[in-house]
Formats: sequence, structure tokens, C-alpha cells
Amino acid sequence: MLKAPDYQVAGHKALDGQLGPLVDGSGRFYKPFQKDERGVQEVAFYTTFSSNTKILDHIRRFFPIFYGTQLVEASDGSGLCPHIVLQDLISNRIHLSIMDIKIGSRTWYPQASEDYFQKCIKKDRETTTVPLGFRISGLQAYESEESGFWKPNRKHVLDFTMNDVRSALRKFVSSNPSSDAEPDCSYASIVYGGSTGILAQLLELKAWFEDQTVFHFYSCSVLMLYEKQAVLEGRSDAEVKLVDFAHVFDGEGVIDHNFLGGLCSLIKFISEILTSPDQFSVKGGLQDSENNCFCSENSIKE
Amino acid sequence: MLKAPDYQVAGHKALDGQLGPLVDGSGRFYKPFQKDERGVQEVAFYTTFSSNTKILDHIRRFFPIFYGTQLVEASDGSGLCPHIVLQDLISNRIHLSIMDIKIGSRTWYPQASEDYFQKCIKKDRETTTVPLGFRISGLQAYESEESGFWKPNRKHVLDFTMNDVRSALRKFVSSNPSSDAEPDCSYASIVYGGSTGILAQLLELKAWFEDQTVFHFYSCSVLMLYEKQAVLEGRSDAEVKLVDFAHVFDGEGVIDHNFLGGLCSLIKFISEILTSPDQFSVKGGLQDSENNCFCSENSIKE
Repeated sequence: MLKAPDYQVAGHKALDGQLGPLVDGSGRFYKPFQKDERGVQEVAFYTTFSSNTKILDHIRRFFPIFYGTQLVEASDGSGLCPHIVLQDLISNRIHLSIMDIKIGSRTWYPQASEDYFQKCIKKDRETTTVPLGFRISGLQAYESEESGFWKPNRKHVLDFTMNDVRSALRKFVSSNPSSDAEPDCSYASIVYGGSTGILAQLLELKAWFEDQTVFHFYSCSVLMLYEKQAVLEGRSDAEVKLVDFAHVFDGEGVIDHNFLGGLCSLIKFISEILTSPDQFSVKGGLQDSENNCFCSENSIKE
Repeated sequence: MLKAPDYQVAGHKALDGQLGPLVDGSGRFYKPFQKDERGVQEVAFYTTFSSNTKILDHIRRFFPIFYGTQLVEASDGSGLCPHIVLQDLISNRIHLSIMDIKIGSRTWYPQASEDYFQKCIKKDRETTTVPLGFRISGLQAYESEESGFWKPNRKHVLDFTMNDVRSALRKFVSSNPSSDAEPDCSYASIVYGGSTGILAQLLELKAWFEDQTVFHFYSCSVLMLYEKQAVLEGRSDAEVKLVDFAHVFDGEGVIDHNFLGGLCSLIKFISEILTSPDQFSVKGGLQDSENNCFCSENSIKE
């Protein structure tokens, strides 16, 4: 009865004999244990998190519900394998627009092995992780019955520049995402804005991250999701969720400044779209300031 | 007429024939151009910043006033050399307590050369820069006429662990900083707290960093300073200042998430001292949570 999910924009897929997550069609998502210790670590996080009574519901709602672990037939035909059983965040959703954003200006953690550190920092410097404090891992935006989804391929998404990210965040809430024309940001105010929109949810998360010193999240993603149909009906069903907890560490009494900094950067991008939905331009200090002789990319040797 | 400043807790000193900053005793500070392009870059920053009319006074007050550049006799006897002329932040201060905190979880910037990147990241990982998002570069705290200042040597300060930083931030506002006893945090409420105290000033800076996308500050320091005499008289003269702008870059429309994250981490440390001035303990997630089996330092291989 388990099958590959209809929508998946990042991570390994349970297709063509590959190992990937499965869904049961009635609200549960089965994530196979990742190799090495990552699967065990992710279960440990969910166990700790779900039993921590200090975490209030307005924060808990950002995390998938955890139902434990279960042996199920793996999608790659390797037999019964342990899976983490979670709430399926996208069951019963139609024509879902979804974006997966890996938060933080580094994906490596202080205790990482030298190999893992080198692998992560290379990718962090090659993507927008270092300059923006986050990178888009995958996305799809529903356009229409005729044109379907705008869904740039993953290789292209990983090559996104700062301006590609700016553009993608606008296209994500536009009626014309797959067009070469300027994104119209038609849905920005209802999806990103309002008292229950994505910006309001990100600000709630931010307030938590300014205070909580229990968890440090590395390589963790913010998912932003909404249905175009709901928007057209004037309802906002936009949601923010956090996923991927294979690299969560004890905060040891320190805030997760790496996650918080990246989250604030994302918040600023989204605020700017709400402030000037019809003005897509490369914003920057040099154009704005009267004197641009201070250190710019080209004038610096070291 | 120029001489070495009475108080200097970080950076090169103009003593024993070394090159260092000088003061004129009437409010001006002469900083010799740093070698390579750093001196030029710092002047470029001050020029840009001081001519930017969009920066309001409540933010401008955190920066030293810039008086231009001037050729003066260098402290190392090398003759007339260019110096940056700035407001002397500590003139007319007696028995000053001062801490220099380098903000950010990285001191390297995206455009850095490979050599500079390697040098910075090594030091960032060896100090509290990576785990805390800031490191203390130097400090002194005035105790009394008899015992003078508590002023740990620089080598020791660079070796500070997370708990040394916690302790130093408490000692800095204690009447017994040089004692082995628990720091009493006697001055915490007047120096850190209150509507004009250091925490309030840091929160104002934070609000600016959540919004401004013009400057990215690398290897820049927050100075916290106050006079014990003022505190004993019930006045708060505590000030926050930003210094060291040799590595400031155009923000290109992105917030300085690296500085902001580190600043929020410092703010959390100071808030905690105000909340529990008499409780110095290693705070952390593991003690607080009911289930500590999730990723701790020891249980993780990668």
C-alpha cells in the first residue's frame, strides 16, 4: 500500500528501484533510515523533541508529528528496513507549490570530521549558503492546468546565484512562474503576507530561535508550501515546516546563531517582496549610496 | 604631543618602538594605516559611511566620528605615515572597564583569497568564533585602587572556552573580577540593564542589522565600556561602539547574517546574566531535557 509521494522537490526519490521515502496515502510518511549514523541521529532528535514538554504548540506545529519507527519494505527492494514514521505534510494537497530551503551559512558543525567539514564547506562556498545564509534545495510552483508546474531541475537549482534566489522567491508566488516575463507576484500578499502567512510564521520561528539554546540545527530545511486553488478562493493555507534533522546537536546553552542568521536573511528577502512586489531589481548598497568607493568585490585583493 | 593610549585591550600597541595607534589627549585617536590594502579599505569605509545620509543618528552614535586622514610621525620611528583620525572613544575616562568582542561566526568573507580563508577559518575553529558566533579579543575590568585591573593576557583570552566567555561576561560587571570566587555581578543591572544600558544598545544595533543590506562587517568588533566610578555613583555611562572596519564589503542587498547571528548570541548571553545574576552554571540542553540521547558531542562520528 506504500508508494512514492506525489510531490518531492529535494532528497532521494523512491523511484526506479532507488531508496526513498514512501507514503501510505492516509497521512503517514515513511522515511528510510539514512546510512551511517544519520538515521539513528534523526530518530534520536525526534524522540527528544517530541518528549520535551517545554516546547509549546505554536512552535511544535512547525515540526512533522513523529509516530515512531517501523520496519517496512524498502523502495529499493532490499527488504524490510527501518523507517521513521512521520506526519505526511502534503497528503490531501492538490497542485502543491513547495520550496525546500536549507538554512544556515554553514552546513558543517564544530564536531564534524575533517572529511565532512571539507565536503560541506566546498558546497557552502559554491552555493548561496555562504553569501545568503541559505540555499534553495528544490522547488515547484503550480501554474495552470495547461502549463503544469514550474520545476527547475535540481542541478540548476544548486547553481542558483543570489539573483536567481531573489527571482525564485518571486516566481514562487506568481501566476506566471514559468514565463520569461517578470514574475507578477500576484499571490505574494496572501501567501507571504497577512497575519497567518509565511512571513508571520517565519517571524514566530525567529522569536523561538532568538531564545532557545537546546537544539542546533545543521543542514535542516524550511519548507514553504501552499495550494494555488486555496489562494484563488481567497483562503491562505500557506505553511512553514522544518524537516531533516540528521544533524541536530545539543545547543549547550548557546543560541543557534547559524540558523537564526540565515532565517533572518530569508525573512528580509520575503519582506522586500511584500514591500515592493512589482519592483524586481538587483538591490544593493552600491546603487543606494552616494559614494561607492568602499570595498567592493573588485577592489579587494584580500 | 601624540602618545600611546592609556587603555588598549586588543590590536598592536604603540609601545617599545612598535607601530600602533596614538592619541592627542584632546579627543582624537590616530590609527596608522594597516598594511596591504586594509588601511585604504578602512578609510574607504569611513568615507562612505560618514557621507551616507540614510544612516540615522541613533545608529551613527555606535561608530567613532571620522575626521579624515593625516600624516603624522609613526610610533615606530618610521617617519611620517598616513593615519586615520577618529574620535578617541576613551579620552577623559578614568579606570575604564572595556571589552573588545569580535562578532561573527566567520571572519573570512566570500571574496577572500584562499590563503586568507585558510588562516581565518583555522583561527575561527580554534576560538569561540565558530561555536558562539563571537570571540573576546581583549578585556580589562577595573576592580579597586588596591588591586587595580583584572586584565587576563591576550594569549589566555584567545584560548577562552565557551565557559570562560560566560565567566568573563559576568566578571566584567562584578566587583570582584580578579577573585577566584564566583563573580558577584554587582553592576550587571546598571551596566547591562536599564533603558540606556548595554543590552538596550545592542538591541538597537540588532534592529538595524535585521534591516540594513548596505554593509557586511567582517572581523569587526563591538566594544563595551563603562566606568566603575559612574556606576558607584548610580549613573550609567555604559557604551557600545563598533570598531575595526578593514574588512567591510558591499552587502549587495543582503543582510549581514553573519554579524547579526553573532550579535544575537552575545545578546542572549547578556540577557541571561540579567535574568539570573547570581546563578553561574553551565547551561545547556542536556541538563534541561528529559531525554538526552539525541546527538551530543560524544555520540557522533560525523
